[in-house]
Amino acid sequence: MNDATTPLAIADIHDAALARRLQHLLDNKTKPLGSLGALEALALQIGLIQQTERAQLLAPQLLVFAGDHGLAAHGVSAYPSDVTWQMVENFLAGGAAVSVLARQHGLDLTVIDAGVRHDFAPRPGLLDRKIAPGTADALNGPAMTDAQCAQAIEAGREVVRGSPGNAVLLGEMGIGNTSSASLLMARLSGEPIERCVGRGTGLDDARLAHKLAVLAAVLRRHAAARTPQEALAAFGGFEIAMMTGAALQAAHERRVIVVDGFIVGAALLVAARIAPAVLGYCVFAHRSGEAGHALLLQHLKARPLLDLGLRLGEGSGGALAWPLLASAVRVLREMASFESAGVSNRDA
Amino acid sequence: MNDATTPLAIADIHDAALARRLQHLLDNKTKPLGSLGALEALALQIGLIQQTERAQLLAPQLLVFAGDHGLAAHGVSAYPSDVTWQMVENFLAGGAAVSVLARQHGLDLTVIDAGVRHDFAPRPGLLDRKIAPGTADALNGPAMTDAQCAQAIEAGREVVRGSPGNAVLLGEMGIGNTSSASLLMARLSGEPIERCVGRGTGLDDARLAHKLAVLAAVLRRHAAARTPQEALAAFGGFEIAMMTGAALQAAHERRVIVVDGFIVGAALLVAARIAPAVLGYCVFAHRSGEAGHALLLQHLKARPLLDLGLRLGEGSGGALAWPLLASAVRVLREMASFESAGVSNRDA
Repeated sequence: MNDATTPLAIADIHDAALARRLQHLLDNKTKPLGSLGALEALALQIGLIQQTERAQLLAPQLLVFAGDHGLAAHGVSAYPSDVTWQMVENFLAGGAAVSVLARQHGLDLTVIDAGVRHDFAPRPGLLDRKIAPGTADALNGPAMTDAQCAQAIEAGREVVRGSPGNAVLLGEMGIGNTSSASLLMARLSGEPIERCVGRGTGLDDARLAHKLAVLAAVLRRHAAARTPQEALAAFGGFEIAMMTGAALQAAHERRVIVVDGFIVGAALLVAARIAPAVLGYCVFAHRSGEAGHALLLQHLKARPLLDLGLRLGEGSGGALAWPLLASAVRVLREMASFESAGVSNRDA
Repeated sequence: MNDATTPLAIADIHDAALARRLQHLLDNKTKPLGSLGALEALALQIGLIQQTERAQLLAPQLLVFAGDHGLAAHGVSAYPSDVTWQMVENFLAGGAAVSVLARQHGLDLTVIDAGVRHDFAPRPGLLDRKIAPGTADALNGPAMTDAQCAQAIEAGREVVRGSPGNAVLLGEMGIGNTSSASLLMARLSGEPIERCVGRGTGLDDARLAHKLAVLAAVLRRHAAARTPQEALAAFGGFEIAMMTGAALQAAHERRVIVVDGFIVGAALLVAARIAPAVLGYCVFAHRSGEAGHALLLQHLKARPLLDLGLRLGEGSGGALAWPLLASAVRVLREMASFESAGVSNRDA
């Protein structure tokens, strides 16, 4: 009944024979050995994910999960909670950063209402998967019940199951959700909370100290929440739980997963604690300006593609990195070999 | 008569009033202040280059300058000189990395024969601006005569004058040209040659030591070549001199200049010594894996967009970075403001 606790079959992407064939293909392209750097590693990874030397990226889906947070009432964000629903409207109207970038790169943008404190009029591009109008206040109890948490994970899986294509880019919106991400990171990585907390959308020093004090209290309140699912239920949010489910399902279906910044990273940390093989399917888009993200990436053993000081979320970093994935696949498919182009190889 | 020594008028891009208006525009977009990081700095720069709040990028030209090097006879490259013309054929046939990336991003690719040791059949996409079939051996005399150097700079200017659009991406091909770039860097920056030399297309330790010894001897041979033009004539190559001219002309016309890796960077170092304001027009695409490039970027006061361990040249790094420039302009033009989108600003 509870799908969240049923381990999903996720295959390890490693395949020594295919990796050798892909490497041979890359090494024979008309370029010095290894000279496309991280792009070659990316081509190899996508080939392994898709189990083919003829990788291709089809109908990429940019899924932006939105939810509100009970903890936001404690002043842990520089913005009021209403900004969550207002930004969802902005995503759908095409005026947000992620809308602009999705348009630029031909990414299908879908916003999922995971639990926004607002009633949206139905319309194309918006999926209603609202678990509740915002999580509960994690200072007073768990952000979600166990049932809500399982329901959110399952909803994330279902969203991916119903999506076309073979690549998903995960994004999020939720005033207060850097707090949930910091709490999940602290609990699941064992790092002290001070190393997991940042300024989010722009707190000053005094409010950062306040945020830190609130989060430390939340951690103490939920000292018993140790498993990934317990931590997720304790700290929220709905959008993070749905992204965890979405990532697990995407990996199960051998889709490429593009991971945006700190909050999507936290969802992946939860997913990796449930099923470590999920990380093989992840392309980490960027290292953000949010304090804690660099350390989170270390825990995920991730080498991000970009380092542009982004700290916006929404999936904007994933969208900005997308052309690099497309390039990696084109290098594999379209570049000539030394032989086919009649180019002399080194020291000939 | 000698255009290369006539200082081209290049305006400083700085304009405090416009910078304030652009910053105001960026600050009122629906995102936390500064949260698009380097992309915002890029939007500001492109606005200043184009002297408008409505920046746009039109008909980007990817110009790949190719030339051979007399110094290549001394074994300073892992590849034979014939690879220069073979790769030019590969660019034109569409099989090289830069061909693939230009196609992906809709960049017009033109290859300029600046001085390849080969006779090409004329065809679309290839400009014959051959100064000579390869530079002379810089160990025995200057790589180019002063007249050839001036002619190459002027040819680069003329290529840009004749190109449509308002952005140029500079790329190059030339077996042996990391040697010229290292020599120019050492002479114009004052850095010891050891800090300016790398493995190029892939030298092993023994051949790297040999390359270093050859370059040290070339530097001694041309101890008197101190001005940018003298250094360029002494060390070559034709493609570097043409890129120097192309960059100066592009800045004169207020075009955006996308600078690829180590060799294009060396051409810009020469250009900046002739006319420092040229650097305001430059977007540095990436930090390459070539030893010396990070230090060269410091001398150019450049913060590159990408850091992917690329060391291919051809303009491939510029092409990979191009979507980020396009994104920066779209953010400026297409993102909603807090007011227009009805989104509450911080601490409202």
